[in-house]
Amino acid sequence: MSLIVAKFGGTSVASPERIKMVAKRLIAMKQAGNDVVAVVSAMGKTTDELVGLAAALSSNPPAREMDRLLSTGEQVSMTLLSMAIDASGYRAMSFSGSQAGIETDNEHAKAKITLIHADRIKSAIAQGIIPVVAGFQGIDKRGDVTTLGRGGSDTTAVAVAYGIGADVCEIYSDVDGIYTADPRVAPRARKLDAISYEDMLELSSSGAGVLQSRAVEFARRYGVVIHSRSAFSDAQGTLIKEADSTMEQAVVSGIAHDTSEVKVTIRDVQDHSGVAAQVFQALASNSVNVDMIIQNISEEGVTDITFTCPGADLPRARTVMESLLAPLGAREYAVDESIAKVSIVGTGMKSSPGVAARAFQALGDSNVNILLISTSPIRLSVVIDALQVEQAVRCLHAAFGLDSDTVFEEKMLSAEELAAKKNKGRS
Amino acid sequence: MSLIVAKFGGTSVASPERIKMVAKRLIAMKQAGNDVVAVVSAMGKTTDELVGLAAALSSNPPAREMDRLLSTGEQVSMTLLSMAIDASGYRAMSFSGSQAGIETDNEHAKAKITLIHADRIKSAIAQGIIPVVAGFQGIDKRGDVTTLGRGGSDTTAVAVAYGIGADVCEIYSDVDGIYTADPRVAPRARKLDAISYEDMLELSSSGAGVLQSRAVEFARRYGVVIHSRSAFSDAQGTLIKEADSTMEQAVVSGIAHDTSEVKVTIRDVQDHSGVAAQVFQALASNSVNVDMIIQNISEEGVTDITFTCPGADLPRARTVMESLLAPLGAREYAVDESIAKVSIVGTGMKSSPGVAARAFQALGDSNVNILLISTSPIRLSVVIDALQVEQAVRCLHAAFGLDSDTVFEEKMLSAEELAAKKNKGRS
Repeated sequence: MSLIVAKFGGTSVASPERIKMVAKRLIAMKQAGNDVVAVVSAMGKTTDELVGLAAALSSNPPAREMDRLLSTGEQVSMTLLSMAIDASGYRAMSFSGSQAGIETDNEHAKAKITLIHADRIKSAIAQGIIPVVAGFQGIDKRGDVTTLGRGGSDTTAVAVAYGIGADVCEIYSDVDGIYTADPRVAPRARKLDAISYEDMLELSSSGAGVLQSRAVEFARRYGVVIHSRSAFSDAQGTLIKEADSTMEQAVVSGIAHDTSEVKVTIRDVQDHSGVAAQVFQALASNSVNVDMIIQNISEEGVTDITFTCPGADLPRARTVMESLLAPLGAREYAVDESIAKVSIVGTGMKSSPGVAARAFQALGDSNVNILLISTSPIRLSVVIDALQVEQAVRCLHAAFGLDSDTVFEEKMLSAEELAAKKNKGRS
Repeated sequence: MSLIVAKFGGTSVASPERIKMVAKRLIAMKQAGNDVVAVVSAMGKTTDELVGLAAALSSNPPAREMDRLLSTGEQVSMTLLSMAIDASGYRAMSFSGSQAGIETDNEHAKAKITLIHADRIKSAIAQGIIPVVAGFQGIDKRGDVTTLGRGGSDTTAVAVAYGIGADVCEIYSDVDGIYTADPRVAPRARKLDAISYEDMLELSSSGAGVLQSRAVEFARRYGVVIHSRSAFSDAQGTLIKEADSTMEQAVVSGIAHDTSEVKVTIRDVQDHSGVAAQVFQALASNSVNVDMIIQNISEEGVTDITFTCPGADLPRARTVMESLLAPLGAREYAVDESIAKVSIVGTGMKSSPGVAARAFQALGDSNVNILLISTSPIRLSVVIDALQVEQAVRCLHAAFGLDSDTVFEEKMLSAEELAAKKNKGRS
């Protein structure tokens, strides 16, 4: 008998058939004696289609209009899911961000939730109704619809869970939990039963795509327990919560990788004070999100400055570089788009020396060349050649004792397929 | 220098290309020194598609959810049109029904507007912005989205025009005004320069589909001048306004026809008092919208009762009839689906005797058999065989002096096509 928030992503509500499955699942929770609130994303590719329509009309659509346009996607899926629940004989009621009392600032396209008035949702629950909330959106003080940024539905779910004091915020997706590494890259990756907010945050922000880091941050701040699980099975997923003694005591929780960043180097910069500030202020004011920064030791008064940033920011980064070469007296700049960042994450690293040494040893043994290094108390990241990303993730996964006895692909096969595969191997 | 509300229907905003054309048109009005507010319907077939999605999930979706679902259609087109205007260098701002301050009762799917708070729209106009309002929708006291019924965008446009004190409410569609008859049926139909609210109301409710009768009624009550005109040309259309001396002094303004009704007859009903009440109360409580009623003179204590209703209501009417035969002691009931109602409408009929005689004469001369007759002070309707509808409309159109010297199809042809046609006729 729990109070549950259950969030379903776009794939889970991509068609009327899938929406019916979600309705069934919610009703099963209800029948098991729980109270449940659903949070939904837009159906399948709806958001992309709406973005396409906008692009046909404007190369730079006003943010207020764009937010209003995109918010309709979740409003369609919330009403359809409510209808499906109703058609199965249970009561449901849809709530747009505004009706759900999700107030935000007015930073369109990346609004932050400032307040949640959950009274109307609570009152619906008390009447035995299943509230269905549109993810990804809120309303600002002027009554204008805002959106929380791509993947913001996770944040909506956590915010609603906090607002109504839910026992757990279940986030359903096409993966069945948090793994020690991406199983497509490291086939011996293991699913974690539980992970701390801190480790999950570092994994999310290092490229693990299962959960939005903002949602995890929100959950940590307000103590909301997240359960990341599969929309297509009943299996237990991974709990994201405050670190406690029941969690595995591994030094490293997982290995994340990210191939979406690029590396930029400005060569032969005149090395006087304020140079770095000049570069990174210019980048920041042009909305280039710089991740890692390395400045070489100065030789004969000149130095190289290297940084990484999302590939999406590269056009803006190039513009900034062009404008800076002359004022900095720099020779040229070079871009490397074929890089990968691999990160080792674990709260246990804080109390366990030698993690870096073990990582470098493992990478060295596998002939993976390290281009850049950055660290935090619970994370070590290296930038390497993108072609070596699988090798790097696998060798680090093994080196830190994360390897499972079974290989991921085999778990995905049916008993028959597995037998067939084994027989084939023997023949 | 006027304050104009301009409403564009679904066909006018069916694609990004058409939306750009609408934006161009609005900007032209602005450049001519006017202030303008746009009201839009959903793009093309959007509403039908949303209805289809709902039907895939529920045979009887809750009205509150259905309204919320359908309202997204207009919200998409309002944002896209705003983007198109913005991309052309003019300022625009979209307003959902709720943002436009359109308050309604909570009769979902057919809500009535109770109040308009036009402050936000007025303030946008004052800032030089083109407000773009979502048609068809409002918000009730609980903050739930309501819809005004199919075609409700016309009503939104009139309501907004009233709320901001606009000089005119322009309603753009694929026809270029109000005709003395449907030109597809009566090729000698003429476009009217102006028509009174009363005549327009009778025409609309008698089958002329150009304007929603509710919108005309709203306009009459609040004195809003409507201009019905073409979305595809700059030609002057038809003004709908208070009758005045500038209007044509014709006895009859137009001939409307409607082939969507059916005729039901209950035969050999025991004729005692209260029988008719029993029949029509049963029909009303089953949502059958009865239009015309005829009861024959009783012979030997039994009579026939005949009525017409929309074809869409026929299944419900049949159910009622089945249940009434025994209690009424009636023999049977018969349905005729092949009927047409033809109506002569004109405020001038009040002061001009002999209209009915002239109409019956004309129909008789054309061998059109009259099945039922009903009248109002400014309307005479006859029900005839559906196969004779063109003949009936044309002969009445001629009999009341409405025929134009030119034939409609010819106006639609280019000069070249017309010349070609004439030459062909000669050869």
